[in-house]
Amino acid sequence: MKTLGTLLFPGFELLDVAGPLEMFGPPNDLVEIRMVAETAGPIASTQGVRFAVDDLTTDDHAYDMILVPGGMGTRREVDNAALLDWLRRVSATAELVMSVCTGSALLARAGLLDGKRATTNKRAFSWVTSQADKVLWQPKARWAEDGKFLTSSGISAGMDMSLAAIARLAGREEADVTALRAEYDWHDDPDWDPFAEHYGLV
Amino acid sequence: MKTLGTLLFPGFELLDVAGPLEMFGPPNDLVEIRMVAETAGPIASTQGVRFAVDDLTTDDHAYDMILVPGGMGTRREVDNAALLDWLRRVSATAELVMSVCTGSALLARAGLLDGKRATTNKRAFSWVTSQADKVLWQPKARWAEDGKFLTSSGISAGMDMSLAAIARLAGREEADVTALRAEYDWHDDPDWDPFAEHYGLV
Repeated sequence: MKTLGTLLFPGFELLDVAGPLEMFGPPNDLVEIRMVAETAGPIASTQGVRFAVDDLTTDDHAYDMILVPGGMGTRREVDNAALLDWLRRVSATAELVMSVCTGSALLARAGLLDGKRATTNKRAFSWVTSQADKVLWQPKARWAEDGKFLTSSGISAGMDMSLAAIARLAGREEADVTALRAEYDWHDDPDWDPFAEHYGLV
Repeated sequence: MKTLGTLLFPGFELLDVAGPLEMFGPPNDLVEIRMVAETAGPIASTQGVRFAVDDLTTDDHAYDMILVPGGMGTRREVDNAALLDWLRRVSATAELVMSVCTGSALLARAGLLDGKRATTNKRAFSWVTSQADKVLWQPKARWAEDGKFLTSSGISAGMDMSLAAIARLAGREEADVTALRAEYDWHDDPDWDPFAEHYGLV
Protein backbone atom coordinates (compact mmCIF):
# COMPACT_ATOMS: atom_id res chain seq x y z
CA MET A 1 0.00 0.00 0.00
CA LYS A 2 1.32 3.44 -0.91
CA THR A 3 1.64 6.20 1.65
CA LEU A 4 -0.16 9.48 0.98
CA GLY A 5 1.28 12.36 2.98
CA THR A 6 -1.36 15.10 3.26
CA LEU A 7 -0.11 18.51 4.33
CA LEU A 8 -2.10 20.46 6.90
CA PHE A 9 -1.54 24.08 7.94
CA PRO A 10 -3.77 26.51 9.83
CA GLY A 11 -6.46 27.75 7.44
CA PHE A 12 -6.39 24.81 5.03
CA GLU A 13 -9.55 24.40 2.95
CA LEU A 14 -11.67 21.53 4.27
CA LEU A 15 -12.88 20.02 0.99
CA ASP A 16 -9.42 20.35 -0.61
CA VAL A 17 -8.30 17.70 1.86
CA ALA A 18 -11.45 15.66 2.43
CA GLY A 19 -12.55 15.36 -1.21
CA PRO A 20 -9.35 13.63 -2.38
CA LEU A 21 -9.04 11.51 0.77
CA GLU A 22 -12.63 10.30 0.35
CA MET A 23 -11.66 9.05 -3.11
CA PHE A 24 -8.32 7.49 -2.13
CA GLY A 25 -9.48 6.02 1.19
CA PRO A 26 -11.10 2.68 2.08
CA PRO A 27 -12.66 0.54 0.79
CA ASN A 28 -10.00 1.28 -1.85
CA ASP A 29 -6.79 -0.36 -0.67
CA LEU A 30 -4.67 2.10 -2.59
CA VAL A 31 -3.13 4.28 0.09
CA GLU A 32 -2.33 4.68 3.74
CA ILE A 33 -3.31 8.24 4.65
CA ARG A 34 -0.91 10.25 6.84
CA MET A 35 -1.70 13.79 7.97
CA VAL A 36 1.47 15.89 8.14
CA ALA A 37 1.97 19.29 9.77
CA GLU A 38 4.65 21.50 11.28
CA THR A 39 3.06 21.23 14.73
CA ALA A 40 1.40 18.42 16.66
CA GLY A 41 -2.01 20.00 16.13
CA PRO A 42 -4.92 19.66 15.93
CA ILE A 43 -4.89 21.93 12.88
CA ALA A 44 -7.99 24.01 12.11
CA SER A 45 -9.38 24.43 8.61
CA THR A 46 -10.83 27.75 7.44
CA GLN A 47 -14.18 26.33 8.56
CA GLY A 48 -12.89 25.74 12.10
CA VAL A 49 -12.89 21.95 11.71
CA ARG A 50 -9.81 20.59 13.50
CA PHE A 51 -7.85 17.62 12.15
CA ALA A 52 -5.44 15.48 14.17
CA VAL A 53 -1.85 15.17 12.95
CA ASP A 54 -0.01 11.86 12.35
CA ASP A 55 3.48 13.02 11.36
CA LEU A 56 5.53 16.17 11.78
CA THR A 57 7.35 17.72 8.83
CA THR A 58 10.49 17.53 10.98
CA ASP A 59 10.09 13.71 11.27
CA ASP A 60 11.74 13.49 7.87
CA HIS A 61 9.34 10.81 6.59
CA ALA A 62 9.16 10.06 2.88
CA TYR A 63 5.82 9.40 1.16
CA ASP A 64 4.86 7.73 -2.10
CA MET A 65 2.32 10.45 -2.77
CA ILE A 66 1.85 14.02 -1.54
CA LEU A 67 -1.35 16.07 -1.31
CA VAL A 68 -1.13 19.85 -0.82
CA PRO A 69 -4.43 21.63 -0.12
CA GLY A 70 -5.22 25.29 -0.63
CA GLY A 71 -7.09 27.67 1.64
CA MET A 72 -6.56 31.10 3.17
CA GLY A 73 -3.52 29.76 5.05
CA THR A 74 -1.55 29.55 1.79
CA ARG A 75 -1.29 33.39 1.83
CA ARG A 76 0.96 32.97 4.87
CA GLU A 77 2.66 29.69 4.01
CA VAL A 78 4.07 30.91 0.65
CA ASP A 79 6.62 32.78 2.82
CA ASN A 80 7.35 29.79 5.09
CA ALA A 81 10.86 28.74 4.04
CA ALA A 82 10.91 25.62 6.23
CA LEU A 83 7.65 24.37 4.73
CA LEU A 84 8.80 25.03 1.16
CA ASP A 85 11.98 23.11 2.04
CA TRP A 86 9.85 20.17 3.22
CA LEU A 87 7.86 20.28 -0.02
CA ARG A 88 11.05 20.13 -2.08
CA ARG A 89 12.39 17.25 0.04
CA VAL A 90 9.29 15.02 -0.06
CA SER A 91 8.54 15.84 -3.70
CA ALA A 92 12.01 14.65 -4.74
CA THR A 93 11.22 11.05 -3.76
CA ALA A 94 7.41 10.92 -4.17
CA GLU A 95 6.03 9.36 -7.33
CA LEU A 96 2.98 11.63 -7.38
CA VAL A 97 2.64 15.19 -6.06
CA MET A 98 -0.87 16.66 -6.06
CA SER A 99 -2.26 20.05 -5.14
CA VAL A 100 -5.79 21.38 -4.91
CA CYS A 101 -6.87 25.00 -5.35
CA THR A 102 -4.30 27.53 -4.08
CA GLY A 103 -2.10 24.65 -2.89
CA SER A 104 -0.31 25.03 -6.22
CA ALA A 105 0.98 28.41 -4.97
CA LEU A 106 3.05 26.51 -2.40
CA LEU A 107 4.45 24.09 -4.99
CA ALA A 108 5.15 27.04 -7.29
CA ARG A 109 6.95 29.06 -4.60
CA ALA A 110 9.03 25.95 -3.82
CA GLY A 111 10.14 26.09 -7.47
CA LEU A 112 8.70 22.65 -8.14
CA LEU A 113 6.44 23.74 -11.00
CA ASP A 114 9.00 25.75 -13.01
CA GLY A 115 8.61 24.90 -16.68
CA LYS A 116 5.61 22.71 -15.96
CA ARG A 117 1.93 22.94 -16.89
CA ALA A 118 -0.13 23.66 -13.79
CA THR A 119 -3.45 25.13 -12.77
CA THR A 120 -5.13 26.50 -9.65
CA ASN A 121 -8.27 28.12 -8.23
CA LYS A 122 -9.89 30.35 -10.86
CA ARG A 123 -11.10 33.04 -8.47
CA ALA A 124 -7.60 33.42 -6.98
CA PHE A 125 -5.84 32.89 -10.31
CA SER A 126 -4.02 36.23 -10.43
CA TRP A 127 -2.65 35.88 -6.89
CA VAL A 128 -1.43 32.31 -7.39
CA THR A 129 0.13 32.92 -10.79
CA SER A 130 1.95 36.01 -9.42
CA GLN A 131 3.85 33.69 -7.06
CA ALA A 132 6.07 32.16 -9.76
CA ASP A 133 6.62 33.35 -13.33
CA LYS A 134 8.30 30.26 -14.78
CA VAL A 135 5.21 28.05 -14.41
CA LEU A 136 3.14 27.31 -17.51
CA TRP A 137 -0.12 28.35 -15.82
CA GLN A 138 -3.28 26.98 -17.47
CA PRO A 139 -6.24 29.37 -17.16
CA LYS A 140 -8.77 26.77 -18.37
CA ALA A 141 -8.27 23.31 -16.87
CA ARG A 142 -10.12 21.26 -14.28
CA TRP A 143 -6.71 19.82 -13.50
CA ALA A 144 -3.29 19.74 -15.17
CA GLU A 145 -0.88 16.83 -15.31
CA ASP A 146 2.83 17.24 -16.00
CA GLY A 147 4.97 14.26 -15.11
CA LYS A 148 4.45 13.47 -11.46
CA PHE A 149 2.76 16.80 -10.69
CA LEU A 150 -1.05 16.97 -10.73
CA THR A 151 -2.51 20.37 -9.88
CA SER A 152 -6.25 20.99 -9.72
CA SER A 153 -8.55 23.94 -10.00
CA GLY A 154 -10.55 25.23 -7.00
CA ILE A 155 -11.84 23.24 -4.02
CA SER A 156 -14.22 20.63 -5.51
CA ALA A 157 -11.86 20.01 -8.46
CA GLY A 158 -9.60 18.00 -6.17
CA MET A 159 -12.08 15.13 -6.38
CA ASP A 160 -11.94 15.02 -10.18
CA MET A 161 -8.13 15.16 -10.13
CA SER A 162 -7.96 12.39 -7.51
CA LEU A 163 -10.13 10.10 -9.62
CA ALA A 164 -7.75 10.75 -12.54
CA ALA A 165 -4.85 9.85 -10.25
CA ILE A 166 -6.63 6.63 -9.24
CA ALA A 167 -7.15 5.79 -12.91
CA ARG A 168 -3.44 6.32 -13.45
CA LEU A 169 -2.46 4.18 -10.44
CA ALA A 170 -5.05 1.42 -10.59
CA GLY A 171 -6.89 1.70 -13.90
CA ARG A 172 -9.96 3.47 -15.21
CA GLU A 173 -12.35 0.84 -13.86
CA GLU A 174 -11.17 1.39 -10.29
CA ALA A 175 -11.71 5.13 -10.69
CA ASP A 176 -15.22 4.58 -12.08
CA VAL A 177 -16.13 2.27 -9.20
CA THR A 178 -14.81 4.83 -6.71
CA ALA A 179 -16.92 7.62 -8.25
CA LEU A 180 -20.03 5.41 -8.28
CA ARG A 181 -19.51 4.44 -4.65
CA ALA A 182 -19.40 8.12 -3.67
CA GLU A 183 -22.43 8.74 -5.98
CA TYR A 184 -20.18 11.38 -7.50
CA ASP A 185 -20.65 12.80 -10.98
CA TRP A 186 -16.99 12.67 -12.00
CA HIS A 187 -15.96 15.36 -14.48
CA ASP A 188 -13.39 13.15 -16.15
CA ASP A 189 -12.37 15.63 -18.85
CA PRO A 190 -9.43 17.79 -17.64
CA ASP A 191 -10.52 20.49 -20.12
CA TRP A 192 -13.98 20.83 -18.53
CA ASP A 193 -13.83 24.16 -16.71
CA PRO A 194 -16.85 26.47 -16.86
CA PHE A 195 -15.40 28.41 -13.94
CA ALA A 196 -12.54 29.76 -16.05
CA GLU A 197 -15.14 31.58 -18.13
CA HIS A 198 -17.19 32.61 -15.12
CA TYR A 199 -14.16 34.27 -13.54
CA GLY A 200 -13.17 35.94 -16.82
CA LEU A 201 -9.98 33.97 -17.53
CA VAL A 202 -10.92 32.92 -21.05
CA MET B 1 -25.32 33.20 13.36
CA LYS B 2 -26.98 29.80 13.58
CA THR B 3 -25.28 26.86 15.26
CA LEU B 4 -24.76 23.69 13.23
CA GLY B 5 -24.21 20.63 15.42
CA THR B 6 -22.41 17.97 13.38
CA LEU B 7 -22.49 14.46 14.79
CA LEU B 8 -19.28 12.41 14.74
CA PHE B 9 -18.96 8.71 15.61
CA PRO B 10 -16.15 6.22 14.88
CA GLY B 11 -16.35 5.23 11.24
CA PHE B 12 -18.16 8.32 9.96
CA GLU B 13 -17.75 8.95 6.24
CA LEU B 14 -15.31 11.80 5.62
CA LEU B 15 -17.04 13.56 2.71
CA ASP B 16 -20.48 13.23 4.35
CA VAL B 17 -19.19 15.69 6.96
CA ALA B 18 -16.69 17.77 4.99
CA GLY B 19 -18.82 18.33 1.87
CA PRO B 20 -21.69 20.04 3.73
CA LEU B 21 -19.37 21.95 6.09
CA GLU B 22 -17.39 23.29 3.14
CA MET B 23 -20.65 24.73 1.79
CA PHE B 24 -21.95 26.12 5.10
CA GLY B 25 -18.59 27.40 6.36
CA PRO B 26 -16.80 30.72 5.90
CA PRO B 27 -16.73 32.98 4.02
CA ASN B 28 -20.47 32.35 4.38
CA ASP B 29 -21.54 33.81 7.71
CA LEU B 30 -24.44 31.41 7.97
CA VAL B 31 -23.41 29.03 10.71
CA GLU B 32 -21.11 28.37 13.61
CA ILE B 33 -19.89 24.79 13.18
CA ARG B 34 -19.77 22.57 16.29
CA MET B 35 -18.50 18.98 16.16
CA VAL B 36 -20.45 16.77 18.58
CA ALA B 37 -19.61 13.26 19.77
CA GLU B 38 -20.19 10.88 22.67
CA THR B 39 -16.51 10.97 23.62
CA ALA B 40 -13.87 13.70 23.73
CA GLY B 41 -12.17 12.28 20.66
CA PRO B 42 -10.49 12.70 18.31
CA ILE B 43 -12.94 10.62 16.25
CA ALA B 44 -11.64 8.70 13.23
CA SER B 45 -13.48 8.55 9.93
CA THR B 46 -13.58 5.36 7.85
CA GLN B 47 -10.54 6.80 6.05
CA GLY B 48 -8.61 7.14 9.33
CA VAL B 49 -8.80 10.93 9.33
CA ARG B 50 -9.31 12.08 12.92
CA PHE B 51 -11.50 15.07 13.78
CA ALA B 52 -11.38 17.00 17.05
CA VAL B 53 -14.60 17.28 19.08
CA ASP B 54 -16.11 20.55 20.35
CA ASP B 55 -19.13 19.37 22.35
CA LEU B 56 -20.20 16.13 24.00
CA THR B 57 -23.69 14.72 23.45
CA THR B 58 -24.01 14.69 27.26
CA ASP B 59 -23.40 18.47 27.38
CA ASP B 60 -27.07 18.88 26.51
CA HIS B 61 -26.47 21.69 24.03
CA ALA B 62 -29.21 22.69 21.61
CA TYR B 63 -28.39 23.56 17.96
CA ASP B 64 -30.27 25.47 15.30
CA MET B 65 -29.26 22.88 12.72
CA ILE B 66 -28.12 19.26 12.92
CA LEU B 67 -25.98 17.29 10.44
CA VAL B 68 -25.86 13.49 10.68
CA PRO B 69 -23.29 11.75 8.45
CA GLY B 70 -23.30 8.17 7.28
CA GLY B 71 -20.45 5.70 7.09
CA MET B 72 -19.70 2.17 8.24
CA GLY B 73 -20.12 3.30 11.86
CA THR B 74 -23.87 3.65 11.35
CA ARG B 75 -24.12 -0.18 11.34
CA ARG B 76 -23.19 -0.04 15.03
CA GLU B 77 -24.84 3.24 16.00
CA VAL B 78 -28.36 2.20 14.91
CA ASP B 79 -28.35 0.12 18.13
CA ASN B 80 -26.97 2.94 20.30
CA ALA B 81 -29.97 3.94 22.44
CA ALA B 82 -28.19 6.91 24.05
CA LEU B 83 -27.25 8.35 20.68
CA LEU B 84 -30.78 7.88 19.27
CA ASP B 85 -32.03 9.66 22.39
CA TRP B 86 -29.68 12.57 21.70
CA LEU B 87 -30.94 12.74 18.09
CA ARG B 88 -34.54 12.92 19.29
CA ARG B 89 -33.66 15.60 21.85
CA VAL B 90 -31.72 17.93 19.53
CA SER B 91 -34.09 17.38 16.62
CA ALA B 92 -37.05 18.53 18.71
CA THR B 93 -35.69 22.08 18.96
CA ALA B 94 -33.59 22.34 15.76
CA GLU B 95 -35.11 24.16 12.80
CA LEU B 96 -33.29 21.99 10.26
CA VAL B 97 -32.16 18.36 10.60
CA MET B 98 -29.99 17.01 7.79
CA SER B 99 -28.51 13.61 7.07
CA VAL B 100 -26.12 12.37 4.39
CA CYS B 101 -25.91 8.83 3.05
CA THR B 102 -26.63 6.14 5.67
CA GLY B 103 -27.00 8.87 8.31
CA SER B 104 -30.73 8.64 7.57
CA ALA B 105 -30.68 5.16 9.14
CA LEU B 106 -29.94 6.82 12.49
CA LEU B 107 -32.75 9.37 12.09
CA ALA B 108 -35.07 6.55 11.00
CA ARG B 109 -34.19 4.31 13.96
CA ALA B 110 -34.79 7.28 16.25
CA GLY B 111 -38.34 7.36 14.80
CA LEU B 112 -37.83 10.87 13.49
CA LEU B 113 -38.67 10.04 9.88
CA ASP B 114 -41.89 8.09 10.46
CA GLY B 115 -44.48 9.19 7.91
CA LYS B 116 -41.94 11.42 6.19
CA ARG B 117 -40.35 11.36 2.74
CA ALA B 118 -36.66 10.50 3.04
CA THR B 119 -33.81 9.07 1.02
CA THR B 120 -30.38 7.56 1.58
CA ASN B 121 -27.35 5.94 -0.05
CA LYS B 122 -28.44 3.95 -3.11
CA ARG B 123 -25.90 1.15 -2.72
CA ALA B 124 -26.96 0.56 0.90
CA PHE B 125 -30.65 1.25 0.20
CA SER B 126 -32.01 -2.13 1.32
CA TRP B 127 -30.11 -2.06 4.62
CA VAL B 128 -31.15 1.50 5.49
CA THR B 129 -34.79 1.06 4.52
CA SER B 130 -34.98 -2.16 6.59
CA GLN B 131 -34.28 -0.06 9.70
CA ALA B 132 -37.73 1.58 9.81
CA ASP B 133 -40.88 0.61 7.92
CA LYS B 134 -42.99 3.73 8.50
CA VAL B 135 -40.67 6.00 6.50
CA LEU B 136 -41.74 7.01 2.98
CA TRP B 137 -38.40 5.97 1.46
CA GLN B 138 -37.64 7.53 -1.92
CA PRO B 139 -35.59 5.23 -4.18
CA LYS B 140 -34.86 7.97 -6.72
CA ALA B 141 -33.90 11.31 -5.19
CA ARG B 142 -30.65 13.25 -4.86
CA TRP B 143 -32.16 14.52 -1.65
CA ALA B 144 -35.60 14.61 -0.03
CA GLU B 145 -37.15 17.44 1.94
CA ASP B 146 -40.03 16.96 4.36
CA GLY B 147 -40.61 19.80 6.78
CA LYS B 148 -37.43 20.38 8.72
CA PHE B 149 -35.88 17.07 7.67
CA LEU B 150 -33.50 17.01 4.69
CA THR B 151 -32.02 13.61 3.86
CA SER B 152 -29.57 13.09 1.04
CA SER B 153 -28.40 10.25 -1.11
CA GLY B 154 -24.86 8.83 -0.85
CA ILE B 155 -21.68 10.66 0.16
CA SER B 156 -21.25 13.43 -2.44
CA ALA B 157 -25.00 14.16 -2.45
CA GLY B 158 -24.60 15.95 0.88
CA MET B 159 -23.09 18.92 -0.99
CA ASP B 160 -26.13 19.26 -3.27
CA MET B 161 -28.50 18.99 -0.30
CA SER B 162 -26.50 21.57 1.66
CA LEU B 163 -26.69 24.07 -1.19
CA ALA B 164 -30.47 23.54 -1.24
CA ALA B 165 -30.51 24.20 2.51
CA ILE B 166 -28.49 27.39 1.98
CA ALA B 167 -30.99 28.48 -0.69
CA ARG B 168 -33.78 27.89 1.82
CA LEU B 169 -31.99 29.79 4.61
CA ALA B 170 -30.38 32.63 2.69
CA GLY B 171 -31.79 32.62 -0.84
CA ARG B 172 -30.92 31.04 -4.15
CA GLU B 173 -28.28 33.66 -4.98
CA GLU B 174 -26.28 32.83 -1.85
CA ALA B 175 -26.36 29.14 -2.77
CA ASP B 176 -25.20 29.88 -6.32
CA VAL B 177 -22.32 32.05 -5.06
CA THR B 178 -21.30 29.28 -2.65
CA ALA B 179 -21.25 26.67 -5.42
CA LEU B 180 -19.25 28.97 -7.70
CA ARG B 181 -16.74 29.69 -4.96
CA ALA B 182 -16.14 25.95 -4.51
CA GLU B 183 -16.05 25.56 -8.33
CA TYR B 184 -18.73 22.98 -7.73
CA ASP B 185 -21.18 21.79 -10.37
CA TRP B 186 -24.29 21.89 -8.18
CA HIS B 187 -26.93 19.33 -9.12
CA ASP B 188 -29.78 21.55 -8.02
CA ASP B 189 -32.60 19.22 -9.09
CA PRO B 190 -33.58 16.91 -6.21
CA ASP B 191 -34.90 14.41 -8.79
CA TRP B 192 -31.47 14.07 -10.49
CA ASP B 193 -30.28 10.64 -9.43
CA PRO B 194 -28.56 8.44 -12.03
CA PHE B 195 -27.25 6.26 -9.18
CA ALA B 196 -30.76 4.96 -8.39
CA GLU B 197 -30.78 3.38 -11.83
CA HIS B 198 -27.18 2.20 -11.59
CA TYR B 199 -27.94 0.36 -8.36
CA GLY B 200 -31.16 -1.12 -9.77
CA LEU B 201 -33.65 0.77 -7.60
CA VAL B 202 -35.77 2.10 -10.48
